[in-house]
Amino acid sequence: MSLIDPLRPLYPFAAIVGQERLKTALILNVIDPSLSGVLIRGEKGTAKSTAVRALAALLPDIAVVEGCPFQSDPDDPKAMSSEVRARVAAGESLPTVTRRVRVVELPISATEDRVVGTLDLEHALTEGKKRIEPGLLAAAHRGILYVDEVNLLDDHVVDVLLDSAAMGVNTIEREGISVSHPARFTLIGTMNPEEGELRPQLLDRFGLCVQVEGLAVPEQRVEVIKRRAAFEADPESFGLGWARETEALRARIAAAIARRPRLVATDAILLDIAHRCLATGVDGHRADIVMLKTAKALAAWAGRDEVIAADLDEAQSLVLPHRQRRRPFEDVFRPDAA
Amino acid sequence: MSLIDPLRPLYPFAAIVGQERLKTALILNVIDPSLSGVLIRGEKGTAKSTAVRALAALLPDIAVVEGCPFQSDPDDPKAMSSEVRARVAAGESLPTVTRRVRVVELPISATEDRVVGTLDLEHALTEGKKRIEPGLLAAAHRGILYVDEVNLLDDHVVDVLLDSAAMGVNTIEREGISVSHPARFTLIGTMNPEEGELRPQLLDRFGLCVQVEGLAVPEQRVEVIKRRAAFEADPESFGLGWARETEALRARIAAAIARRPRLVATDAILLDIAHRCLATGVDGHRADIVMLKTAKALAAWAGRDEVIAADLDEAQSLVLPHRQRRRPFEDVFRPDAA
Amino acid sequence: MSLIDPLRPLYPFAAIVGQERLKTALILNVIDPSLSGVLIRGEKGTAKSTAVRALAALLPDIAVVEGCPFQSDPDDPKAMSSEVRARVAAGESLPTVTRRVRVVELPISATEDRVVGTLDLEHALTEGKKRIEPGLLAAAHRGILYVDEVNLLDDHVVDVLLDSAAMGVNTIEREGISVSHPARFTLIGTMNPEEGELRPQLLDRFGLCVQVEGLAVPEQRVEVIKRRAAFEADPESFGLGWARETEALRARIAAAIARRPRLVATDAILLDIAHRCLATGVDGHRADIVMLKTAKALAAWAGRDEVIAADLDEAQSLVLPHRQRRRPFEDVFRPDAA
Amino acid sequence: MSLIDPLRPLYPFAAIVGQERLKTALILNVIDPSLSGVLIRGEKGTAKSTAVRALAALLPDIAVVEGCPFQSDPDDPKAMSSEVRARVAAGESLPTVTRRVRVVELPISATEDRVVGTLDLEHALTEGKKRIEPGLLAAAHRGILYVDEVNLLDDHVVDVLLDSAAMGVNTIEREGISVSHPARFTLIGTMNPEEGELRPQLLDRFGLCVQVEGLAVPEQRVEVIKRRAAFEADPESFGLGWARETEALRARIAAAIARRPRLVATDAILLDIAHRCLATGVDGHRADIVMLKTAKALAAWAGRDEVIAADLDEAQSLVLPHRQRRRPFEDVFRPDAA
Amino acid sequence: MSLIDPLRPLYPFAAIVGQERLKTALILNVIDPSLSGVLIRGEKGTAKSTAVRALAALLPDIAVVEGCPFQSDPDDPKAMSSEVRARVAAGESLPTVTRRVRVVELPISATEDRVVGTLDLEHALTEGKKRIEPGLLAAAHRGILYVDEVNLLDDHVVDVLLDSAAMGVNTIEREGISVSHPARFTLIGTMNPEEGELRPQLLDRFGLCVQVEGLAVPEQRVEVIKRRAAFEADPESFGLGWARETEALRARIAAAIARRPRLVATDAILLDIAHRCLATGVDGHRADIVMLKTAKALAAWAGRDEVIAADLDEAQSLVLPHRQRRRPFEDVFRPDAA
Amino acid sequence: MSLIDPLRPLYPFAAIVGQERLKTALILNVIDPSLSGVLIRGEKGTAKSTAVRALAALLPDIAVVEGCPFQSDPDDPKAMSSEVRARVAAGESLPTVTRRVRVVELPISATEDRVVGTLDLEHALTEGKKRIEPGLLAAAHRGILYVDEVNLLDDHVVDVLLDSAAMGVNTIEREGISVSHPARFTLIGTMNPEEGELRPQLLDRFGLCVQVEGLAVPEQRVEVIKRRAAFEADPESFGLGWARETEALRARIAAAIARRPRLVATDAILLDIAHRCLATGVDGHRADIVMLKTAKALAAWAGRDEVIAADLDEAQSLVLPHRQRRRPFEDVFRPDAA
Repeated sequence: MSLIDPLRPLYPFAAIVGQERLKTALILNVIDPSLSGVLIRGEKGTAKSTAVRALAALLPDIAVVEGCPFQSDPDDPKAMSSEVRARVAAGESLPTVTRRVRVVELPISATEDRVVGTLDLEHALTEGKKRIEPGLLAAAHRGILYVDEVNLLDDHVVDVLLDSAAMGVNTIEREGISVSHPARFTLIGTMNPEEGELRPQLLDRFGLCVQVEGLAVPEQRVEVIKRRAAFEADPESFGLGWARETEALRARIAAAIARRPRLVATDAILLDIAHRCLATGVDGHRADIVMLKTAKALAAWAGRDEVIAADLDEAQSLVLPHRQRRRPFEDVFRPDAA
Repeated sequence: MSLIDPLRPLYPFAAIVGQERLKTALILNVIDPSLSGVLIRGEKGTAKSTAVRALAALLPDIAVVEGCPFQSDPDDPKAMSSEVRARVAAGESLPTVTRRVRVVELPISATEDRVVGTLDLEHALTEGKKRIEPGLLAAAHRGILYVDEVNLLDDHVVDVLLDSAAMGVNTIEREGISVSHPARFTLIGTMNPEEGELRPQLLDRFGLCVQVEGLAVPEQRVEVIKRRAAFEADPESFGLGWARETEALRARIAAAIARRPRLVATDAILLDIAHRCLATGVDGHRADIVMLKTAKALAAWAGRDEVIAADLDEAQSLVLPHRQRRRPFEDVFRPDAA
Repeated sequence: MSLIDPLRPLYPFAAIVGQERLKTALILNVIDPSLSGVLIRGEKGTAKSTAVRALAALLPDIAVVEGCPFQSDPDDPKAMSSEVRARVAAGESLPTVTRRVRVVELPISATEDRVVGTLDLEHALTEGKKRIEPGLLAAAHRGILYVDEVNLLDDHVVDVLLDSAAMGVNTIEREGISVSHPARFTLIGTMNPEEGELRPQLLDRFGLCVQVEGLAVPEQRVEVIKRRAAFEADPESFGLGWARETEALRARIAAAIARRPRLVATDAILLDIAHRCLATGVDGHRADIVMLKTAKALAAWAGRDEVIAADLDEAQSLVLPHRQRRRPFEDVFRPDAA
Repeated sequence: MSLIDPLRPLYPFAAIVGQERLKTALILNVIDPSLSGVLIRGEKGTAKSTAVRALAALLPDIAVVEGCPFQSDPDDPKAMSSEVRARVAAGESLPTVTRRVRVVELPISATEDRVVGTLDLEHALTEGKKRIEPGLLAAAHRGILYVDEVNLLDDHVVDVLLDSAAMGVNTIEREGISVSHPARFTLIGTMNPEEGELRPQLLDRFGLCVQVEGLAVPEQRVEVIKRRAAFEADPESFGLGWARETEALRARIAAAIARRPRLVATDAILLDIAHRCLATGVDGHRADIVMLKTAKALAAWAGRDEVIAADLDEAQSLVLPHRQRRRPFEDVFRPDAA
Repeated sequence: MSLIDPLRPLYPFAAIVGQERLKTALILNVIDPSLSGVLIRGEKGTAKSTAVRALAALLPDIAVVEGCPFQSDPDDPKAMSSEVRARVAAGESLPTVTRRVRVVELPISATEDRVVGTLDLEHALTEGKKRIEPGLLAAAHRGILYVDEVNLLDDHVVDVLLDSAAMGVNTIEREGISVSHPARFTLIGTMNPEEGELRPQLLDRFGLCVQVEGLAVPEQRVEVIKRRAAFEADPESFGLGWARETEALRARIAAAIARRPRLVATDAILLDIAHRCLATGVDGHRADIVMLKTAKALAAWAGRDEVIAADLDEAQSLVLPHRQRRRPFEDVFRPDAA
Repeated sequence: MSLIDPLRPLYPFAAIVGQERLKTALILNVIDPSLSGVLIRGEKGTAKSTAVRALAALLPDIAVVEGCPFQSDPDDPKAMSSEVRARVAAGESLPTVTRRVRVVELPISATEDRVVGTLDLEHALTEGKKRIEPGLLAAAHRGILYVDEVNLLDDHVVDVLLDSAAMGVNTIEREGISVSHPARFTLIGTMNPEEGELRPQLLDRFGLCVQVEGLAVPEQRVEVIKRRAAFEADPESFGLGWARETEALRARIAAAIARRPRLVATDAILLDIAHRCLATGVDGHRADIVMLKTAKALAAWAGRDEVIAADLDEAQSLVLPHRQRRRPFEDVFRPDAA
């Protein structure tokens, strides 16, 4: 399943030196999963992958139908697979388990079959009946789908991701069997722009985009070396040393999640968003909608109950640059040097 | 089947802000399905897909032979599959059901087999007899075939669509079995011209073409944000809030469908059409024929009993620009800014 | 088999407005099938496909061996399949049926297997014996093979058509089985030159070539719209309205077929043909031979018993332009504006 | 087998108008098969294919081992298949039949399997034992292999032809079975230079090369039209009308075959050949050897017992131009306008 | 397995003339396997492959679980396969063997299946159950993976190596079976820059990089010839002649391995590293971390207990040049001419 | 196996006119097989292939284990297959036969399976057990592998040859079976530079390289024609006519083989070699080593007991030109005009 290896100790999110904008963007997507993800652009060897994996330790718990390969939500028919819906319709009461939201890794060598799901050949051969083998999109439902080097993905797999992201549904069709299941996930991708840019359609699917670079302050670099060396020497102790900060982050995220739905934005704020989008020259209306959501998540993260103009400034820098029409990235990104 | 997911609430057609030309073009195709579809060109993030899916709620009912995978029309031998015709010939009386006209989505990753139909392998293996598995063209007969990103379709699939559109028949031939069935459908496609243009043959198959852009009036953008946020927060209530407008649209469409066959066009109108087509410099005669039909549908939609010159003005803007010889699109389209 | 759908009403050949040169070229091939076909070049939306399909209603009857998938001629061993020849050799008397000459459509998505024929897999699996499944070339023997968009044909299929056209024989070889059958057909192709030109070898195989364009006289365009609308509204009545003209055409064609073998051409005519071909600068001698045949068919169509110079003028315009060496089409074709 | 169809009447070789150089080149290869073939370059519609097929009627008889798919020569172990050699070694006396030398056509759509031979799948499946299915190279052994449009051959097939021509042996290796058989044949190819040139290695394999063009004398063209029309009207009578000329040609060829081995060439002639080859600038020594053989065959055809300088002039024009280093064909070929 | 052939005598590492930098880089990776490997760039015919194979004789011993195809470490759960972990969890006591660290060769013609592992077809066919066949990544775990001509590797295989190197885990997924095992290895690659450069992502994965050239001192070249000739004439005696030097190297390496974990680096050294990396202009922070490790391994190799500035000088020349942004290799490498 | 056909008479090596450098290069590789082969560059139609095949008659005898498909050497464990080694280990005494060293031809259409070896499918199907089918590399062990047109080899096959040549071992891995066997062979390739150059890595693998051209002296060309004609007319008699020269060559080669291991080269000679290689600018040290071997083989061929400077002159012309860095071949080759 390419899931995060349970045996491999995770570097604590809180111990990442600098890279504040990256950390904020990831946290905002935990606060509001409908932001649809983050694209992380940057050089080799920055904390990109480390940060995404570390995020796993901060994710909230969810309830799922036990044994359902499609992570059906026992409380929401729209987030159930067709099979679970049938069981509900038949009056069955569903066994439920609670577990952490998952980070599913999609390796760039993954085939379309692996992503979409395919026919379970062994079952077909031994039992003489066809059965579907769920794919990575099933595993990622209600969680995070992480693609390292997303700009190197095969075009066919990109098409499948776009279809699925657009419809919120994945359909597996092989040899006359057809199974549909909901597939809503936060898409996190990293890319090194030296190896090629993204197709505009895929770029647009990422709610937020951040640019990361190596730190330019020697003392910060020394801190990176020291923490990494300490982590490699004894990951368990290192993790324990950061346990308090980790716990604090989790609590603050949980509070923001609870606060977000109650947040309000005045008409003046909405009009400000529309003006900013028109001034920047973005296509369509998705940017407006994502900007409102981002601003609300920022306000929730700040512990406020309403959106203020400063939220728009920060949201704009995360939402608009990669949506600007026909301008090279170099001009529109300002690196995160915190 | 890639059908519109029944569980997913549809955004009400009437609640779409602006985009009048797009909405008109879609409605005209419901009034007269022989218009053969609409090509929707435009930027990312405009209401293109939303509008097409929303259209599903406005479609009329049709009678079909129960259980027939080819949507055979119980009253019209020309719209029956060969198998149903054989049953009629054998004196059988056909069981009939009435249901909404369907919108079938053709994903761009669909294979030729999936579109045309193929051999049912499981049946072949277990029963030792070949049987045909109908494809998307069977499901779309007498309905709407919707292709998002139609300019990214595989060339083989385009060939199949063109063949089928030209003949009104789809033939499935695999391993010595051959099944033909009628395949008449309204083809609706969206495309982002940044990702490539259409082959001229496919372009010509779309009766109408509209260009959509994001709204330029900040207050309209705010309205978009507000309605979207309200819909996402509680789609059922939002739908109920627009129920009256939706019902009114359905009734007006039904009236137009009833009125259209009675509509007349004078010889002066016909001559006007011919002059406009010659002046614009289109290939062949299809433009003339589609313009007459579009003008009639517009008159029916307006509640009139005869075609007037104003109908021709509007029909011309929908029918001729994408058929003009050798002129860039930029020059011939005027965006819809209502 | 991609045959003309029997349920679909055909637009009457006689009701096609204008396009006289196209209609003549098609009729000449019915009068003398050894002319080897017509290439119809032209814009989208002209009556190209309609005319070819309409031709089916004008074709004469032929006798075939009953049940023979290769259309064996009961009276001509050279037009029998090897199996039928074996039956004749064994003294069997052949059951015969008389039926209309066929128009077989070759879709551009057709595979080489579909065109040439292939192994009948089901028979092989169930009976344990190999059997050949005849292809489109078998169905087209002694008839018309129609390829819409012939310039988009796969190169492998073109090779197969050229081999077959050159030898008059098709050989199916799969897995050690080899079956040969005669394959002589009139090849009718349409093409839109915007989508690419033909390979010279294939171009040369078409006896005649015509260029069609949309009509430039507004009143004629109105007539096209009116007839088309009438046909779509009620195809049966429309067909009945043109029944007399259709019958007259059939009778005139039958008379011309009977007259053609008796026609003579003087040595002066032959010398005139040679001079015209040399002056035009065509490759080889095929043009000379086709010009003589075309002139004879024209004379037969005109009801004359000998070829006259005017026949050569018309034949030249149908036979020579597409065979001229190294000259762009634009210079050598004059459009048919009748 | 793509053999010349026995049912299709052949146009008599003697009735071909003009094209003397082509006819000579073909006959020389019948007189001395070690000349390795002719490449016929020329426009569409000249008598290229007709002449090669017509040649079949002039070929001598040979003795072959009955039932041997590799045309084993009962009198020459070097021209036997390994299986026949094994039978001889086992003391078996071989059944022999005498039949005409064959012309085998290699269609350009032929696969490598078809040319080389392959595994007989049916036999493998039913009998559980592997058996080789001989290919076109087996059928062509001791005969003529004819490739129309040789410049369009797939590169893999060209490699196989070159290997086989270089070694005189074809080896079929599939799934662990390996069968070798002699494969010596005269390779006759036609090509239209408009569709691309040959690879130098393949060009060099053709002993002779001729360029053909359409006739430029109107009276000759009329003669072509007349004879073709007469042949098409009644091929049998036409063949009978040329029977005497055909018989004379066969007799003269047989005499030349008998005379050739006795022919002598003086040292002066050999030195003349070497000087001509050096002056022309050909690669290697194959040209010298082929020129001597060609000159001897020409002398035999002329009924002489020794080679004279005039033979060298004619041989040079057939052997050297296509072997000249780095010079365009246009400069070195003089068309055959006889 | 492409392992070093046990029968083939290895040229002694100590007998390699010159190439000190290459030898140092290889030894450093034995001292600290987390350095992640060496890329050896250089001309054809230098001692590149010889040195890597010779290294095998200097490697230390490790304990592995007996019979485990994934080289599970009996003492470290993080370096066990999931199957061994299950056995431990079930309370089984693991049988252990001690053997030399392996050098596994990855041939550039290796398929993705061969590298990742695949389904054991024979087992599936005979036993009717699926079983995984481990690949080269399983064999290389805890050892050295050697790729000659690494710049010619297939892109798919490079993707697999990068995934595996990034995650330290290899996942084999075929037909519904999924097996994960740890895959941590030292990657040693050679390349001839004339045949193409590496993708930046792969380049970055090599901890160190050295450039090798042929020796420029004639007397050294003579020594190379003499030693090579002596080795080829009698490899066993030659090996014995160098046995003492070989043993000394092994002992010194073992001492350095023991010393390394105790090594300390002052904050001044860390700050020096950060300054050097910033001054050179490398991407990210991996260079800093690798430089610290390299300096420690150099100090351990020198027998010192702390890192000194001279270690940084040497480490910098091995770690930074191939990580420098946008500068041609020619400018940044100084060849090793010792 | 593509072995030299035993039935086909070989042209005597001694009867080749001129081409002394080519003949010397081939003989040197027989005297010392570790020279690793010859690359023969030259025009079409020179004696390239003839000379290689003729060499087969001059090869010495070797002892092989009877029935072993890998040509195991009964006296040298390093040249045994793993299976034979196992038999030795089991105490079996090996049956031995003595036969001529083989020339194995590798056709350029050979697949990778054919070269490397593959699974014996028939055995697998009938016996239910997997068995390896050895490939051409097995057949060529301890012999000569001959590739005509080596520059047209498929890249995958070149990779396999390079791997095998570099390691002296071939590994066959299919479906979970893995067999290794020694694969040491002399690689002889011909190429026509008009059809493309070799990859540098492959070029470097050929110990020697010669350039051949057609003879420029008319009298020599006449001699070629005469001998060829005599050979074709009666190969057996021709061979007998050259039997004494052939026998003398064999004896002289056998003497040189015996003498070579005793040959000495002074340090002055070694230093001279190093200076020449440095002056020429070759990559690495392989050139030095091959030059020493070549000089020794030349001295042995000349019947001397020590290497002299003249040997170096000749060796240099065979070893260095194709290894020179970045210089076109045209400048560095002097054709062999003897």
